[in-house]
Amino acid sequence: MPLVPPTTLPAWKTLVDLADRMQTPEHHLRRIIEAPGRLDAFSAAGGGLFYDYSRQRVIPAVMDGLLALAVQRDLTGAFRRMVDGETVNPTEKRAALHTAARRLDEAPVDVDGRDVMPEIRAVREQIREFAAAVHAGRITGSTGKPFRDIVVVGIGGSYLGAAFAAHALAEDALPGMRLHFLANVDIHNFGRVAATIDPEATLWVVISKSYTTTETMANALQAEHFMRQKGLDPARHTVTVTAKGSPGDDPGRPVLAAFHMFDFIGGRYSVTSAVGGVPLSLYLGYDKFEAMLQGAEEMDRHAAAAPAGQNLPLLAALITVWNTNFLGYPALGIIPYADPLAKLPAHVQQLNMESNGKSVDLDGRPLETATGPIIFGEPGTCAQHSFFQLAHQGRPFPIEFIGVLRPRYPQPADVRSKGVSNHQELWANLVAQSRALALGKAEGPPERRFEGNRPSSTLLMEDLSPRSVGRLLSFYEARTVFEAFVWGINPFDQFGVELGKTMASGLRRAMADQNAGHPLPADMDPIARFYLRTLAAGRWD
Amino acid sequence: MPLVPPTTLPAWKTLVDLADRMQTPEHHLRRIIEAPGRLDAFSAAGGGLFYDYSRQRVIPAVMDGLLALAVQRDLTGAFRRMVDGETVNPTEKRAALHTAARRLDEAPVDVDGRDVMPEIRAVREQIREFAAAVHAGRITGSTGKPFRDIVVVGIGGSYLGAAFAAHALAEDALPGMRLHFLANVDIHNFGRVAATIDPEATLWVVISKSYTTTETMANALQAEHFMRQKGLDPARHTVTVTAKGSPGDDPGRPVLAAFHMFDFIGGRYSVTSAVGGVPLSLYLGYDKFEAMLQGAEEMDRHAAAAPAGQNLPLLAALITVWNTNFLGYPALGIIPYADPLAKLPAHVQQLNMESNGKSVDLDGRPLETATGPIIFGEPGTCAQHSFFQLAHQGRPFPIEFIGVLRPRYPQPADVRSKGVSNHQELWANLVAQSRALALGKAEGPPERRFEGNRPSSTLLMEDLSPRSVGRLLSFYEARTVFEAFVWGINPFDQFGVELGKTMASGLRRAMADQNAGHPLPADMDPIARFYLRTLAAGRWD
Repeated sequence: MPLVPPTTLPAWKTLVDLADRMQTPEHHLRRIIEAPGRLDAFSAAGGGLFYDYSRQRVIPAVMDGLLALAVQRDLTGAFRRMVDGETVNPTEKRAALHTAARRLDEAPVDVDGRDVMPEIRAVREQIREFAAAVHAGRITGSTGKPFRDIVVVGIGGSYLGAAFAAHALAEDALPGMRLHFLANVDIHNFGRVAATIDPEATLWVVISKSYTTTETMANALQAEHFMRQKGLDPARHTVTVTAKGSPGDDPGRPVLAAFHMFDFIGGRYSVTSAVGGVPLSLYLGYDKFEAMLQGAEEMDRHAAAAPAGQNLPLLAALITVWNTNFLGYPALGIIPYADPLAKLPAHVQQLNMESNGKSVDLDGRPLETATGPIIFGEPGTCAQHSFFQLAHQGRPFPIEFIGVLRPRYPQPADVRSKGVSNHQELWANLVAQSRALALGKAEGPPERRFEGNRPSSTLLMEDLSPRSVGRLLSFYEARTVFEAFVWGINPFDQFGVELGKTMASGLRRAMADQNAGHPLPADMDPIARFYLRTLAAGRWD
Repeated sequence: MPLVPPTTLPAWKTLVDLADRMQTPEHHLRRIIEAPGRLDAFSAAGGGLFYDYSRQRVIPAVMDGLLALAVQRDLTGAFRRMVDGETVNPTEKRAALHTAARRLDEAPVDVDGRDVMPEIRAVREQIREFAAAVHAGRITGSTGKPFRDIVVVGIGGSYLGAAFAAHALAEDALPGMRLHFLANVDIHNFGRVAATIDPEATLWVVISKSYTTTETMANALQAEHFMRQKGLDPARHTVTVTAKGSPGDDPGRPVLAAFHMFDFIGGRYSVTSAVGGVPLSLYLGYDKFEAMLQGAEEMDRHAAAAPAGQNLPLLAALITVWNTNFLGYPALGIIPYADPLAKLPAHVQQLNMESNGKSVDLDGRPLETATGPIIFGEPGTCAQHSFFQLAHQGRPFPIEFIGVLRPRYPQPADVRSKGVSNHQELWANLVAQSRALALGKAEGPPERRFEGNRPSSTLLMEDLSPRSVGRLLSFYEARTVFEAFVWGINPFDQFGVELGKTMASGLRRAMADQNAGHPLPADMDPIARFYLRTLAAGRWD
């Protein structure tokens, strides 16, 4: 199907009219959520999750329009083409096969006529064996001490997914194992990690597809220096996760193991590849990582097969499009009512904002529509005591609440506050917030009134097991690409990060010259010159 | 001066016209930042910080208009009235005297004719003595073990400021002291803290002005149960920070110490009161806390005395107003190029979004203007590898960069990557990003083009000392209230959090009845009923 701007599709025009209608008082959320059967009609379960969009500003006609848009854009077909290994990332001429990373069946997945599953399975097996050998003490540091501190050296997609999952699953950590992240080039990141670890028991996991990422290379150099200072052999304390044949996969620079990354899996979609697999298997054990893969695979199958009206990530994507393009909201708050999911907003920030923060379509034409919203969030109930004032009485923005049915920690029946357990208290708030945002309150003095009509969704998970976390990760990945398919953009490239990198390179060269005693270039812009002089002098006046 | 809507002020109308002019190509940032002397004209130093707004979309006429607005709104006078203890929070009939919390001089500060400084000084002295006694081992837990684990039980303003400062100042922690936060009512928060601490060496610091905050009381109950289980005496492992005469300041429920909070200091402005003072003094030592107060006081004096055109928080507030009301940006990214400042965005989220997420003015009239933006952020360079794709090529939003001149960790000259230290690399990126966002790039294939014209500021700190952190805290507080003074709103109340609380109370009662074997109320709304049934059943189908 040829790519046309989404605004030219018949469903788009219908939705523009409907958005006008939604501004009338009879379409205030306070009215529309009272319709009989509202929840049944505006919720779906699948892939192990439950998604309730009954408090979104949608009526049946809006969902009809959005589902028509899904058909006119062939979202299901586009998803299948991605899963089947087609070149869905045209600017980089690549497939996008993060779904293959968690395929646990025997089916082949072809890229350019070659089945990639054998190499994916081989890396998984390599991870399983390596983690088992570390945990059994068969692989140790150069002084013979078992590895206990795992330091991931990686940034962006080589960091955020694993950091989210590790925090979510901390109760599953193997006894005594600690996982640290060295992402930021800021020396404080290195300084703090170095002060925390036992050097002899530390395994450094350096993750970079190209093995040239500036931050990661700078930090790996710090780590190497640190190991040598402690009399340790870096080759026996380091593994790499990198592309085959990269400088990190060079027999001339031996390491304990090199795990391969593939061109057909992008960084921000890579948590179920070796990028997440190596750190998480070392921290939790391979079996837990594989359980996460099972959950992700389950949601992938749901996303590929469920009819649009019952397809959770597809519905969530349509709600994003509705809120962004038709109701004009600029942002999305993600509020997990689960402290272990505290790092989900930062992960989805990268996943979604890097994928969908685009201004040209797949054919290079400037878009006429807004694309990805700003995404932010903190766990509830903490967020209620922070920025929810603005959510209720200031600038409206849609919210995605996340609830977890069964907590990890039991709570004795005799330690209840106001007659309820902490988990019940958490849920009382989760359920209340969505309703309060929708209904508002017209009475009282002005500062105590609420206009309401503020939309939200609620996503439920069964628990915080690896499998549930895998489902959640896949939900957000699939939702992100469905949004991109509606907009007709490429969610797999990220050329927007290049300009800053190029300019930083120029400044780095000037600083290196400065370090070598040379003056700053005469043609340097005066603002940059001020900052470089200020940094060198240690003062601005 | 009578409060009129800001839109009726002469300067406002001028600024509306100027905002139109800024849309023309000759006012693209690429053009205006090349003006000779741009940085000198659009930057200021004071209160120990440096603020550069040269890459904001402002020209001299815009700054003239904004400074006229500052005069027409009497921002300096409003700030002085706040500092002088007037009732600047009319809905709650209170002063807002967070600035008094860090006054280290002998001058009186009157509230309703009574000097409040003696009681503020008395609490400080109580904190100093208590912390010293704990550190010297004169006050210990009930088994005689010195306190080493400090657990703050508090949420919102009783948590975020201290959590930010503690993370920023971790290098200053006293040897062996560990600080934990138990904020979320989610049982996972308690479970994880409980699994980390040494119960005998743990001091619980329960912080709540009313001592009725639901989450804090629920967690304090968990803590008490936990201590009893371990055979410890809760009275000898607990201190409270609370209002005089609250249930947490009841001789009938003895604790090691009760430190008073005052009605005239609001939660989100309370980090320099006992709310921050007790945890930070226990963690870092009182002297470090006092150094933080010195920094905050220094910035307070600057904010009160500096002329508007040289007043950092006032200028920053005017830039917010310009970006929000005239250029129409919905959000502000705060990107500290310093990993220890990682928790600043979450603190400022509460401080600013709770203060300025309002829809009515001080007289209760609905506002015609937008107020506080959505605030979010992550440290650089990590953010570059996450959502900066969107910042460069997607939806534009202003960014506030923060740089630190001198890092805490030395770096040997022979461990440089690409000829520069990690700290230089960090700065190369800090400086490059602001320029790349401003300039853009018109050449290349469509996916590699950047429209530019994306505004940013850069705030510089000398270092990450307690004093610098105090300056930064005060900067954001003053900037927040200056913004509110322009809009004519009350930045000290937060009635927007009440509706959700009320609805949660109703649901909690229904759950408590459920726990006692009673059915759910017949008139409960069907969506809430579904969630309560689902939680009780542990499944949604």
